[in-house]
Amino acid sequence: MSAQDSTIRARSLGIPFDGITGKFNAITDVAGVEVGHRTIIEGSGKLIKGVGPVRTGVTAILPGGKKFTPVFANWCMLNGNGDMTGTHWITESGFLETPILITNTGSVGIVRDAALEWMDKNHYYSADEDNVWYAYPVTAETYDGILNDINGFHVKKEDTWAALDSAKSGPAVEGNVGGGTGMICHGFKGGIGTASRVIDKKYGAYTVGVLVQTNYGIREQLTIAGVPVGKELADTLPIIFNGIVSNDKLDGVNAETGSIIVIAATDAPLLPHQLKRIAQRVSLGIGKVGGIGGNGSGDIFLAFSTANKDAFNRNTETTVKMYPNDNMGVLFTATIQATEEAIINALIAAKTMTGINDNTVPALPHDAVIRILKKYNRIKE
Amino acid sequence: MSAQDSTIRARSLGIPFDGITGKFNAITDVAGVEVGHRTIIEGSGKLIKGVGPVRTGVTAILPGGKKFTPVFANWCMLNGNGDMTGTHWITESGFLETPILITNTGSVGIVRDAALEWMDKNHYYSADEDNVWYAYPVTAETYDGILNDINGFHVKKEDTWAALDSAKSGPAVEGNVGGGTGMICHGFKGGIGTASRVIDKKYGAYTVGVLVQTNYGIREQLTIAGVPVGKELADTLPIIFNGIVSNDKLDGVNAETGSIIVIAATDAPLLPHQLKRIAQRVSLGIGKVGGIGGNGSGDIFLAFSTANKDAFNRNTETTVKMYPNDNMGVLFTATIQATEEAIINALIAAKTMTGINDNTVPALPHDAVIRILKKYNRIKE
Amino acid sequence: MSAQDSTIRARSLGIPFDGITGKFNAITDVAGVEVGHRTIIEGSGKLIKGVGPVRTGVTAILPGGKKFTPVFANWCMLNGNGDMTGTHWITESGFLETPILITNTGSVGIVRDAALEWMDKNHYYSADEDNVWYAYPVTAETYDGILNDINGFHVKKEDTWAALDSAKSGPAVEGNVGGGTGMICHGFKGGIGTASRVIDKKYGAYTVGVLVQTNYGIREQLTIAGVPVGKELADTLPIIFNGIVSNDKLDGVNAETGSIIVIAATDAPLLPHQLKRIAQRVSLGIGKVGGIGGNGSGDIFLAFSTANKDAFNRNTETTVKMYPNDNMGVLFTATIQATEEAIINALIAAKTMTGINDNTVPALPHDAVIRILKKYNRIKE
Amino acid sequence: MSAQDSTIRARSLGIPFDGITGKFNAITDVAGVEVGHRTIIEGSGKLIKGVGPVRTGVTAILPGGKKFTPVFANWCMLNGNGDMTGTHWITESGFLETPILITNTGSVGIVRDAALEWMDKNHYYSADEDNVWYAYPVTAETYDGILNDINGFHVKKEDTWAALDSAKSGPAVEGNVGGGTGMICHGFKGGIGTASRVIDKKYGAYTVGVLVQTNYGIREQLTIAGVPVGKELADTLPIIFNGIVSNDKLDGVNAETGSIIVIAATDAPLLPHQLKRIAQRVSLGIGKVGGIGGNGSGDIFLAFSTANKDAFNRNTETTVKMYPNDNMGVLFTATIQATEEAIINALIAAKTMTGINDNTVPALPHDAVIRILKKYNRIKE
Repeated sequence: MSAQDSTIRARSLGIPFDGITGKFNAITDVAGVEVGHRTIIEGSGKLIKGVGPVRTGVTAILPGGKKFTPVFANWCMLNGNGDMTGTHWITESGFLETPILITNTGSVGIVRDAALEWMDKNHYYSADEDNVWYAYPVTAETYDGILNDINGFHVKKEDTWAALDSAKSGPAVEGNVGGGTGMICHGFKGGIGTASRVIDKKYGAYTVGVLVQTNYGIREQLTIAGVPVGKELADTLPIIFNGIVSNDKLDGVNAETGSIIVIAATDAPLLPHQLKRIAQRVSLGIGKVGGIGGNGSGDIFLAFSTANKDAFNRNTETTVKMYPNDNMGVLFTATIQATEEAIINALIAAKTMTGINDNTVPALPHDAVIRILKKYNRIKE
Repeated sequence: MSAQDSTIRARSLGIPFDGITGKFNAITDVAGVEVGHRTIIEGSGKLIKGVGPVRTGVTAILPGGKKFTPVFANWCMLNGNGDMTGTHWITESGFLETPILITNTGSVGIVRDAALEWMDKNHYYSADEDNVWYAYPVTAETYDGILNDINGFHVKKEDTWAALDSAKSGPAVEGNVGGGTGMICHGFKGGIGTASRVIDKKYGAYTVGVLVQTNYGIREQLTIAGVPVGKELADTLPIIFNGIVSNDKLDGVNAETGSIIVIAATDAPLLPHQLKRIAQRVSLGIGKVGGIGGNGSGDIFLAFSTANKDAFNRNTETTVKMYPNDNMGVLFTATIQATEEAIINALIAAKTMTGINDNTVPALPHDAVIRILKKYNRIKE
Repeated sequence: MSAQDSTIRARSLGIPFDGITGKFNAITDVAGVEVGHRTIIEGSGKLIKGVGPVRTGVTAILPGGKKFTPVFANWCMLNGNGDMTGTHWITESGFLETPILITNTGSVGIVRDAALEWMDKNHYYSADEDNVWYAYPVTAETYDGILNDINGFHVKKEDTWAALDSAKSGPAVEGNVGGGTGMICHGFKGGIGTASRVIDKKYGAYTVGVLVQTNYGIREQLTIAGVPVGKELADTLPIIFNGIVSNDKLDGVNAETGSIIVIAATDAPLLPHQLKRIAQRVSLGIGKVGGIGGNGSGDIFLAFSTANKDAFNRNTETTVKMYPNDNMGVLFTATIQATEEAIINALIAAKTMTGINDNTVPALPHDAVIRILKKYNRIKE
Repeated sequence: MSAQDSTIRARSLGIPFDGITGKFNAITDVAGVEVGHRTIIEGSGKLIKGVGPVRTGVTAILPGGKKFTPVFANWCMLNGNGDMTGTHWITESGFLETPILITNTGSVGIVRDAALEWMDKNHYYSADEDNVWYAYPVTAETYDGILNDINGFHVKKEDTWAALDSAKSGPAVEGNVGGGTGMICHGFKGGIGTASRVIDKKYGAYTVGVLVQTNYGIREQLTIAGVPVGKELADTLPIIFNGIVSNDKLDGVNAETGSIIVIAATDAPLLPHQLKRIAQRVSLGIGKVGGIGGNGSGDIFLAFSTANKDAFNRNTETTVKMYPNDNMGVLFTATIQATEEAIINALIAAKTMTGINDNTVPALPHDAVIRILKKYNRIKE
């Protein structure tokens, strides 16, 4: 397999998706949202704990840029074999008050504290204040120990700061980047993916943007546009793990030891309990690609709204806008569609990677995907 | 024991409570809230299923009177050995869209459907509409089968309508009334109680009103103003149950087969996730009186806010006010205080009752309570 | 369209499904589970409230037959625009202690109380006992007011008893029966459906059986075997509603005013927290058919396990078996597959129905489904 | 005020408590549970970020000592202004698979990762295994920034290891130790406290042990044995904060910016959903001392059971014992009582502390407490 272009996206290959995308077809289509990645790829060959090889990173999502921008938020999970710090205060207060970081399982702590230190040194809360009274940075993870020296703890606080400092709006960066660097999805190389939908003007012309860090799923369940692509590719392109050649990370159904973190942003004026409803629709998008929320999977989803920028106030009543429940179906559909496309974007962008002990995970082959979708009449000849 | 005056309230006996009450010291201090009771007391002597004796009823709470007044609401439970219908849609939508009914365990169904029929025939949603598209009336219960022929199903739909139709604002009606007619609390006669608190002007001068239907607790745990009143009264005033004389409904800790339903209303502009926080503080008030949320207890709490009367709209964005989280401590304190006082009001108002099979539950003796509180220096001589 | 055979099932038409079914491909493949239906179809023509036409019923599911058989259970919801009574005690205790009833939205109450009365008169708890101390019958609903005189309250307690008394094991009865009589799904006639999966011997050879009452979804989202069947049938077979001919119940995305109740049974020895995980996988099966958990939908799911028949004891410690979490992926997959097939079975079995005001909902045409699946190469020519 | 003896406990002062304690009246009365503390007290005078003064530490609780001992667990919160990592997997799996660490708010991350590294280097999962596949260490916090240079990040991974390595069974160590070093509770010096209860032989003679890290509450709410001790001490013993002398950390009800972490252990054979019920009773104990779950408080509670040591298995069904729900009231009462006593033990043990900027928090004066309890006839003269 020759190297595929990591800037090609699912939609441009002709894979059919429903719905209208935003300008970048990315979470950054929601105005104000910034994304930054710090990718760490070093060394090759045999694993020496603490030395490498290293295939990991940090992804930062800032709901409103680099100054304190509390936004309404909520979260849920499909399967909790994972961690996301900071969720308790979101549940209680209805607000997300920090950046969101995504990294590997072993680096949640250092990234979390580094975010706190970054907020302190950047006077995140105010130009004058010298002190962060409290903050519970949201830090999530998926497990990259098949390709990365995960117990070597290679992510440093400076890596977190680099991800945060480099965050910006604009076009999607996908595949083997940031927190997604060493991830595996449905038996192929996974990583970061993103997509967006804009709803009809009649319902407010709002945007839903989704960013995923995909590390879940077994190959035989991979479904693209309703087509059983995973089954069709069952006998090709094996994973090489500890010298063993297999089509899944391990074997059989128990192979699902990965995870998927999904962040959904919108500019629709949703209250916290309505954002939980958005987060709960993420599962349906994952299900369409073939995910089952396997026991080994940490499938944790967070949704936030950039509307109501003045909702947060410590001592004074505020006025907020509220979207009517009866119209939320369009946002649910947008969330499901954007999640599905973001996952496939991650698979399409990620390139074959060789990591620790020469473990190798193949990229999803674009040409085969197109061939199979044509077989099932989902792409016209 | 001579008959006590059921219009005397805990506070007027000199029992000390913290906080400032509203005008009626009742849930009806929250403007717009109406309460109605239908009390059914018929027959005496041996239980003949379907005939009686009957000691039961229905209590109705209407957040905004007799026309469709959707209000923000949320709920929680301390112990779920009970039922409250209609909670799923409150969780999902953030709105309470129906009256609240409280009755006995065996009558939840008929009261729930009767509420639906009442809404339909009263054109609850609109003067013009002839149809209720959907509605999930909130109906809660506690078990009165120690005094009432509960499996005789004596509550009829007309009783529900009577409770709803008679609902009004104004002074508290407490004790052996409505859904609370046949209830038992901490080894004494329980029933309906209510109380309110008004918070400081600095925090908005809002009111929190609480109504309880008390049927929980064993005697030895009864605590009034921090004083172990239940222990002091352990050897007096037994319950008579199936001819057995005992100080608790059954014996020992497992006796807690009752329940407590608590409805908290406020005019503070709380969003649904903030109302859950209010509901969660109810437990602390119950704990102060000695409740433990026993296994046999259905302790389910609902909180609603009458602010934001225009929040509900099927198709259009609305504007709502939001109370600052940082000030919610005063509302938490108000909720805890009002819950504690409402329970004690129920105990003080309820009179000794004899029901099926001559089962008899004594009233909490006012004079003894005063004597014991003096002993512990909580009432001045 | 000629009348289709309501005993034909999706699988026999050639629609491809993954996984191995049990003997009946029904929830009754889980040993001990009994299902009964009471179908009420009376009258035709213009709606006269209280008279008809009537298109409704009751479905009863008994986890262990007609005597007290408490089973571990849990539940969750995708969207809570609906009701299911009795869930609070399941959450708290981990046990389902009553039959499960499913009916229309307006009859939840009468069916719930009727179940209680049936338990009492049948000495459900014991041959000797004369009393039901407490019980919170599980009663769920979906809304059939498009075809049925729902506010006429035609379901009587005797109908509930008939459903309970007629419950039995054995082959599936599907389509326009029981609680599903008047339901609509993805713009076609819905109703009751069921399916099952048996997992590999290596994981215990356990069965997962699912029963659905389908009343959700809009036509354009209907997906069968990954194929966009709903879009292909967009311009045919309209619904007739109040004389208006349309392809959905109402119009656009907001049309999703229905619901889906899903009951999943298994003989795998799952603890209550593991059964919640099963319930949470139901959404993924619905998502594959095109459901979004629309705002108007009451999507409430309950899972129970018939293993550990001796787990329940009021006063003595018991010994229970526990399934290893690491193997639960196979049960998740089974649940998703059975849910998907049960929904499609409901659609395939349900026949065209005309109800109140001559409102008419067409059956999903079998021949068209086959033609479309062939077009997308999912059924071989 | 002279220095008080930090080994004196509430009970030995004569403060009345209900219930029977275990041998140590500590969480370590639950066999197998080990507790270790690393206390860091360095420097004095003006705050220089990164230099000090330092008043902080780490407390470690190991459910079954220093080798992998997965135990059934569950958790809940009263108010979520705080963090506890690792809860998602506990919710999902029902198991706690790591040690529990408690520290300050700014050190959650480093302590969490250090626990992971400690597990890896100590071959926590097995003597042979070289790899931790996944683990989500439970790390909780309360905020000590009033006495400690919290943004100086003084806790190092070696401190976490010291707490873990030093963990042992045996007598309670309380007050200004471990994670509790710099904490404040009800306007007095708080910290670590512990207590236990043994239930009656008739219910299994099981132990409930509780450990608290107390940093919550305002002074006027402090209640000991039902007596309003805080009000009685309102005008004495002020806190000195940034040179301002006050009786609370800040002022008024909003002062509650602290938190309380509570860990409850038992050897009763409770399943995960039953352990949630235990965790939910913790609030009632806090309420008795005067806590309200203030907005600024992170009140997060975890309960685990050391019974069923063989419940955890990756691939094989296991057999577990289950405690009957009907008897859980005695465990609820034990939990409430032990929580109440543990908090007061923390207050009684903690000594006056001066930290950053000479901020000073007074110890709760033993003699005054005794005097006040005598005034209210709760201690005999």
